[in-house]
Amino acid sequence: MGNNNCKDDRAALIVIDMQNGFLEEESSLCIAMAKATVPACSRVIRFAREKQIPVFFVTRIYKEDGSDVEHTRKENWEAGGKPLTKSSKGPLSIEMPAEFTVNSKDFFIVKPRFSAFFATELDLILRRLGVQKIYLAGTTTPNCIRTTCYDGISLDYGVTVIEDCCSSNTLEIQRANMLDMKNIGAKIIDADSFCGESEEE
Amino acid sequence: MGNNNCKDDRAALIVIDMQNGFLEEESSLCIAMAKATVPACSRVIRFAREKQIPVFFVTRIYKEDGSDVEHTRKENWEAGGKPLTKSSKGPLSIEMPAEFTVNSKDFFIVKPRFSAFFATELDLILRRLGVQKIYLAGTTTPNCIRTTCYDGISLDYGVTVIEDCCSSNTLEIQRANMLDMKNIGAKIIDADSFCGESEEE
Repeated sequence: MGNNNCKDDRAALIVIDMQNGFLEEESSLCIAMAKATVPACSRVIRFAREKQIPVFFVTRIYKEDGSDVEHTRKENWEAGGKPLTKSSKGPLSIEMPAEFTVNSKDFFIVKPRFSAFFATELDLILRRLGVQKIYLAGTTTPNCIRTTCYDGISLDYGVTVIEDCCSSNTLEIQRANMLDMKNIGAKIIDADSFCGESEEE
Repeated sequence: MGNNNCKDDRAALIVIDMQNGFLEEESSLCIAMAKATVPACSRVIRFAREKQIPVFFVTRIYKEDGSDVEHTRKENWEAGGKPLTKSSKGPLSIEMPAEFTVNSKDFFIVKPRFSAFFATELDLILRRLGVQKIYLAGTTTPNCIRTTCYDGISLDYGVTVIEDCCSSNTLEIQRANMLDMKNIGAKIIDADSFCGESEEE
């Protein structure tokens, strides 16, 4: 990546939970500001592919019986028509935006909880690829982005959050979480910087 | 615990990182508001012991060579005289406040990262004890309390944060984090409630 970073670091882009069930207002799990980040996410995804940076899509696919829904969310999930299962339709579905043009070179990981590292194979695959630095995009900032950030730092990855590719239910929550992640040593950048930095090489 | 909770839940009190190296202003890792919570922490610890609720002290004891210091914190840790190692003295030391009157019935766990669950035996011991509900106290709210909260929910524990037993560097950070944890399904109470709830039994 760019001149301000260690050029020898191998990087990966991790896009979290950008699925209809989190993006569409008809879903009980909708994150208010998430849909507006689709263009910025699409842009960093395209740019990563151009630069041979592996792209990971980490998503939810809840079981129909809800046995893998977070226990604090299960009541809301049931009342809301059980979004994000394989049989969920339309705005409740597991589908990602068509703009992401997912393809067979991308990596796909299903996570059962908040963090992309929690009970998933993400760390194993990143190690195998020699990745030392992860870029985070997706939703929602206070939950899945942030827990992935802390787990990433705990596992000795350099963690960069692409701020305008991440989303919260309010701007206040978004800002407070960016501050905390910056304070603990994550780097906070925007999509321009992600793309521009690499172009400087 | 109290009438508003499931009486059959077995509970544990988890006190995190309340050590000189985080409490004393001479330490580079000091959390501004942490020392002021010692009386409230002492109170809930005493109350838990009276009620036969197991008390876990989860702490840092960094290696002298820093190989287990979070990579984003290592430079600050070294510049600050390497607090929180076995040989750290006085305000940099690993010691907990004398008011906690730790004893052989308490549980002691050393954690290498933010979350009390990350690469520790905490989950194994809680399962063995049949604990289903954890109460969190200690410092710092945005890092170690919060990551423990999310991991606890992910592992299907009921999680309650005792707000006035937790601390941050600013009130704004404290409030923003309490809101996020409440939004994701943690219960937020104060020390009065912790003690009062149990007294109702």
